[in-house]
Amino acid sequence: MNEYLKHDEWCIIEEGFNPENHQSSESIFSLGNGNMGQRAMFEEAYSGKTLQGTYIAGVYYPDKTRVGWWKNGYPEYFAKVLNAPNWIGIDVKINGEMLDLAKCKLSEFVRTLNMKEGVLKRSFIATMSNGNQVKVEGKRFLSIVTSEVGVIRYSVTALNFDGKISFNSYIDADVKNEDSNYDEKFWDVLNAKSITGEAYITARTKKLDFHVCMGMKYDLYKDDKKQTVVPSLIEEEKYVSNTVVVDICQGEEVVIYKYASVLSSLNHSKTEIMNDAEKVVSEAHQKGYDSLLNEHVAAWADKWANSDITIEGDVAAQQAIRFNIFQLNQTYTGEDERLNIGPKGFTGEKYGGSTYWDTEAYCVPFYLSTSRPEVTRNLLVYRHKQLQKAIENAEKLGFNSGAALYPMVTMNGEECHNEWEITFEEIHRNGAIAFAIYNYIRHTDDKAYLAEYGLDVLVGISRFWSQRVTYSTAKKKYVMLGVTGPNEYENNVNNNWYTNTIACWCMSYTQEAFKYVKESNPVRYEEIMKNLNFDFDQETSRWNDILENMHFPMDEETGVFMQQDGFMDKEQLTASDLDPQFRPINQFWSWDRILRSCFIKQADVLQGIYLFEENYDMETIKKNYNFYEPRTLHESSLSPCIHSILASKIGDIDSAYEMYLRTSRLDLDDYNREAHEGLHITSMAGTWMSIVEGFGGMRVVNGQLSLKPLIPEKWKSYSFKVRFRGNLVNVRVSEEGVGVINEEGEDISIFIVDDEYVIEKSSSLVIEHA
Amino acid sequence: MNEYLKHDEWCIIEEGFNPENHQSSESIFSLGNGNMGQRAMFEEAYSGKTLQGTYIAGVYYPDKTRVGWWKNGYPEYFAKVLNAPNWIGIDVKINGEMLDLAKCKLSEFVRTLNMKEGVLKRSFIATMSNGNQVKVEGKRFLSIVTSEVGVIRYSVTALNFDGKISFNSYIDADVKNEDSNYDEKFWDVLNAKSITGEAYITARTKKLDFHVCMGMKYDLYKDDKKQTVVPSLIEEEKYVSNTVVVDICQGEEVVIYKYASVLSSLNHSKTEIMNDAEKVVSEAHQKGYDSLLNEHVAAWADKWANSDITIEGDVAAQQAIRFNIFQLNQTYTGEDERLNIGPKGFTGEKYGGSTYWDTEAYCVPFYLSTSRPEVTRNLLVYRHKQLQKAIENAEKLGFNSGAALYPMVTMNGEECHNEWEITFEEIHRNGAIAFAIYNYIRHTDDKAYLAEYGLDVLVGISRFWSQRVTYSTAKKKYVMLGVTGPNEYENNVNNNWYTNTIACWCMSYTQEAFKYVKESNPVRYEEIMKNLNFDFDQETSRWNDILENMHFPMDEETGVFMQQDGFMDKEQLTASDLDPQFRPINQFWSWDRILRSCFIKQADVLQGIYLFEENYDMETIKKNYNFYEPRTLHESSLSPCIHSILASKIGDIDSAYEMYLRTSRLDLDDYNREAHEGLHITSMAGTWMSIVEGFGGMRVVNGQLSLKPLIPEKWKSYSFKVRFRGNLVNVRVSEEGVGVINEEGEDISIFIVDDEYVIEKSSSLVIEHA
Repeated sequence: MNEYLKHDEWCIIEEGFNPENHQSSESIFSLGNGNMGQRAMFEEAYSGKTLQGTYIAGVYYPDKTRVGWWKNGYPEYFAKVLNAPNWIGIDVKINGEMLDLAKCKLSEFVRTLNMKEGVLKRSFIATMSNGNQVKVEGKRFLSIVTSEVGVIRYSVTALNFDGKISFNSYIDADVKNEDSNYDEKFWDVLNAKSITGEAYITARTKKLDFHVCMGMKYDLYKDDKKQTVVPSLIEEEKYVSNTVVVDICQGEEVVIYKYASVLSSLNHSKTEIMNDAEKVVSEAHQKGYDSLLNEHVAAWADKWANSDITIEGDVAAQQAIRFNIFQLNQTYTGEDERLNIGPKGFTGEKYGGSTYWDTEAYCVPFYLSTSRPEVTRNLLVYRHKQLQKAIENAEKLGFNSGAALYPMVTMNGEECHNEWEITFEEIHRNGAIAFAIYNYIRHTDDKAYLAEYGLDVLVGISRFWSQRVTYSTAKKKYVMLGVTGPNEYENNVNNNWYTNTIACWCMSYTQEAFKYVKESNPVRYEEIMKNLNFDFDQETSRWNDILENMHFPMDEETGVFMQQDGFMDKEQLTASDLDPQFRPINQFWSWDRILRSCFIKQADVLQGIYLFEENYDMETIKKNYNFYEPRTLHESSLSPCIHSILASKIGDIDSAYEMYLRTSRLDLDDYNREAHEGLHITSMAGTWMSIVEGFGGMRVVNGQLSLKPLIPEKWKSYSFKVRFRGNLVNVRVSEEGVGVINEEGEDISIFIVDDEYVIEKSSSLVIEHA
Repeated sequence: MNEYLKHDEWCIIEEGFNPENHQSSESIFSLGNGNMGQRAMFEEAYSGKTLQGTYIAGVYYPDKTRVGWWKNGYPEYFAKVLNAPNWIGIDVKINGEMLDLAKCKLSEFVRTLNMKEGVLKRSFIATMSNGNQVKVEGKRFLSIVTSEVGVIRYSVTALNFDGKISFNSYIDADVKNEDSNYDEKFWDVLNAKSITGEAYITARTKKLDFHVCMGMKYDLYKDDKKQTVVPSLIEEEKYVSNTVVVDICQGEEVVIYKYASVLSSLNHSKTEIMNDAEKVVSEAHQKGYDSLLNEHVAAWADKWANSDITIEGDVAAQQAIRFNIFQLNQTYTGEDERLNIGPKGFTGEKYGGSTYWDTEAYCVPFYLSTSRPEVTRNLLVYRHKQLQKAIENAEKLGFNSGAALYPMVTMNGEECHNEWEITFEEIHRNGAIAFAIYNYIRHTDDKAYLAEYGLDVLVGISRFWSQRVTYSTAKKKYVMLGVTGPNEYENNVNNNWYTNTIACWCMSYTQEAFKYVKESNPVRYEEIMKNLNFDFDQETSRWNDILENMHFPMDEETGVFMQQDGFMDKEQLTASDLDPQFRPINQFWSWDRILRSCFIKQADVLQGIYLFEENYDMETIKKNYNFYEPRTLHESSLSPCIHSILASKIGDIDSAYEMYLRTSRLDLDDYNREAHEGLHITSMAGTWMSIVEGFGGMRVVNGQLSLKPLIPEKWKSYSFKVRFRGNLVNVRVSEEGVGVINEEGEDISIFIVDDEYVIEKSSSLVIEHA
């Protein structure tokens, strides 16, 4: 834990500068607009510890694999989020002395992330070693209206001197990934240009030939009067800049406005990219800082109107949930089906890759409720487009006939992970991808998606499962050997209940999907059958045989679903038996000890019960929750939210609240001292889920919205909005009762605690003491 | 397979030079004398592919660990066999042109390893690009009498020219390990000296501060007349040499004798090491080539007198078994208890480390029968001295109170392996170390070893097992979760039958050992109890509870011992179901596929049956052999020998012979195309076992030697010698019967096929059609 940030409903605020916290703050105050993002490093020079990070969506690097012990089937590379040329840099000299927060005397330092407006601010007073004192204010944002544009307003006021101030505004392409496997730099510079008032760099990745171009323009003002200063130019191989020097008198303020364009070859032709960058930055420059800011703030207001959650009576919780929502909205906007949601978003480099099962299991529910359907649809189409790669991936592992195994970690559909127990065995991810299709259709009613894109993905996945099981003549059942479930504190186990469950569900749902497509779109149905070379009777008869004869481990005595075969052979302890000073256990225990213990890293059986809740009665849910929760250490950021939702489900609001706190302020309070590496972006969606699905009890039941709200004791009220099919529903839960407003769409029929209510178009409903 | 070597009873012969085979030949023709070794690289320059390797026993380097995914508990380094300065180099120039076998025209190339004499020879005729033709003969050996001395005789005859020949005889310390994790060089040179007629280099390892000094002297002869030539000297930072030039006329032969001393700080003070190297090389030089060679050959004759195996009627088999025995004797002489037997000996760098469970499981039986007891005893003492490290290793993994886990791979007692499924889980190695103590005492009758060194090792190991098991309330049995058995094609399994079996045996044998020490040496007994803080009743009552209630997986239907829990859930296939072109499977299958298959890499249950044969009736042995052999792929070099022994045991001589062939010519015929990396030294002991224990049926039964000989159809006869307690017994098996000579020691009583015979001192026995 490291609680150094002020609690505030709309802002993240750091008062006073502690270099020890700077790298965490660089993560926490990160900016992003779906198309690009950056850590909150300083514009001016900083010689202290910093992780400078500028990232562009979809631009990555295949870094050659480095493992200790190679296993056949490992991928040749690990695709990494790529640190891109830095365009925010402005070196500031005060009477010739470089401003560097690691070297001057600082006071009144405040860093603020205004989440309502999407703006990062910073102000401080610096006393240089020459005695000159300046007040500095910086503001920057990455436009969510024009997503290739970033803008900085940087002002310096001379407090106690007359003299000269210089600004060296630059773009630097000599950057490196912190986690480069072989200490390589990943960029070559193709073109660097510095002319009066502007500068450009085009760089390309040494592999895969991604091109990016960064451009900049700037204006200089003194006390609101525009200054025309002839700059001196630097144009080096990987570095371009303009330096301007202005006279300043005590009390005067000099402001530099820096406009940047950030373009990539995902969206521009390689030959035109520098021209395009000139155009984009010129347009931004012409529009000017205030207009750009205003339209940006207005767009954020729109985003918040759909996705905000309010909490009364608990500022820390209010700040936290907004922080989670804000970061998710910064990371992914759903406009580009080639993109996905990396576990660290644009806030750091760890984990590389962009796509994990996190997307389907955690992020999809968030975007389904807070965005228009297209946003989630694009996440599904992303996987659809990678189906062929998933089939090839399965072939590498010995499967055939169109069986598809989606990768554990990927950028472009190819596996890039390289730990056998995860890469080859944590195959439940395939189920999450199928479930997301079901979830999307259940939520949006876009059944046509099946015929268009969904069915072939479902077939590939079901074929994989049907080949992956083995018929055990000993058990006279189908078994699934050698898997790693969601609980990564078990490896290479047999019959992980969750994996067996979701595998069977996939084979069952795929048949439903077939039925629907056959009835609704027989022409397309025939086309799909032909394309997939699908022998319906033969393939589904095997699936159904598996469905009827699958082995599900269960403890006869307690009636609890067993996480895997042999789970009850373990010594049965609970988390309370552990000495907290030896937690998290993966930092203290050798791996074998973790594996043979009964301790669970993250929801596993309970993840399955969460997904398929409707199949289990309350007693079964309680029994399993009460068995597994005490054994679960929540040493994955993805765990507490699921337990929180189930705790709400069984009415244990105190546990639900406790688990909610763990997930919501994970990064803000830096629970695990790892915020400096970047934020836990995907688990933030879980935080949202633990309010809406947990406390709010939101479900889709037989195609209708259903709520079973509870409220934590500490809160006066909370509210959230859910986009469901054609409606936008605003739910407010307070100590007094539940209010629901049908904000958009036609009349809607909703279940609230088992009773059905019709809320007319643009009307509301209040139920006291629901 | 790559069969390019000539069959010969005593020599390994390569006729004609094929650069493609050179690296394999460098391994196969390796020389060693227990104290040092080297690959069979050329003395003269060679610009083709070569793995130059010079190794000194006990001198290693802790290379910083490089893994993809760090697990808590991994060691910081991997100890590597260290490539040491090269002292064999002699650059040869013919009229100014460098002799380089990759660049000249070659004929009559023959490379011969004379195993009877321990001498490597080479001869060829080279035609230089200037047309000069020379005949070259090289001979070298590493003295097994003076183990710090190596000698080369290198002669050049001018066949078609008069002119000048120069020899640049050097020592080069600018060497590198091929498998350096971070591409580092591991040596610093402390002192380099080149004076007339001699040169020296002292180098030290960058870590651990091992020092080595190499010295050289030489003599030059022309047509048997000693030449006095003033050399030109080179003395660089890491390189010293003398170059001499002599005139030569057509038909004349010039010979250089190079004497080298190779010293390490294991045996010399660091301050004196160069002086000592001067002394050692001067003494060798003084003694002269012929004397050194004669005493070396005589010493090899002694070694062969004790350890030779003859085979009549099968030259390939004869050559192969001698090659295996020769390499074992080159690698380890048993004179230094600080040393052990690396899996590649002095023939390559792969696998690093020096000590695996191979030593106890495979090499100990070989040395027990072929050497005096002290040799094996030193191998046991090696582990005894590392007991404290084994206790610390167990502590790192969460064990306590003196529990000891010996490392998977080690140099100095510290673990250096870094794969969790092996390092932390392949714990059966602990059992092999205990079994070797038992085996040593059974064979030598040196029961006093228990009180001196054995008991504390046994207690540490038994304590480990008693902590490593878990009581399963579900099974009401003790279980051992999360292990990897000898069959490394299974990872992290529960209740590996072999591991459970040997664990129980350890706890049982340790109690026997206690009893013996208590009775025979009560004072020492009390001392040990106190030193180990051993509460006899408390600790052994837990052990006995485990012994009585251990779970051993078994297939009820067939009565076969199950390799682990759930083995019968696998798809039951046999090796014959596999397409040979996709073998070995670890080069074609992803790891998960291997793990969930029923295919076995090496003897596992059968390893247990081999060790504890007396506990199982013939029917049980047959049943298990017939179940496991068809599922075993023998993709470890350690596997076929055990199966061969059991095949002999059950009377299946054809299978036994087939498996014998796989193991004996593994490197000579390069079955797996990996001989270039070095030889499979430790599995060579298994080859020996498959003759003596397999065909010969040699066992120790109730303290007496027992034989049940069989003979492969192809053989006329075979003979071997067994040193057993005070006797040296010579056994000859032929189609006609068995002959046994009691060569050394008092009268001995031997079982031959269940009948007991007494053979008097220096007498023999012949049994026809035994």
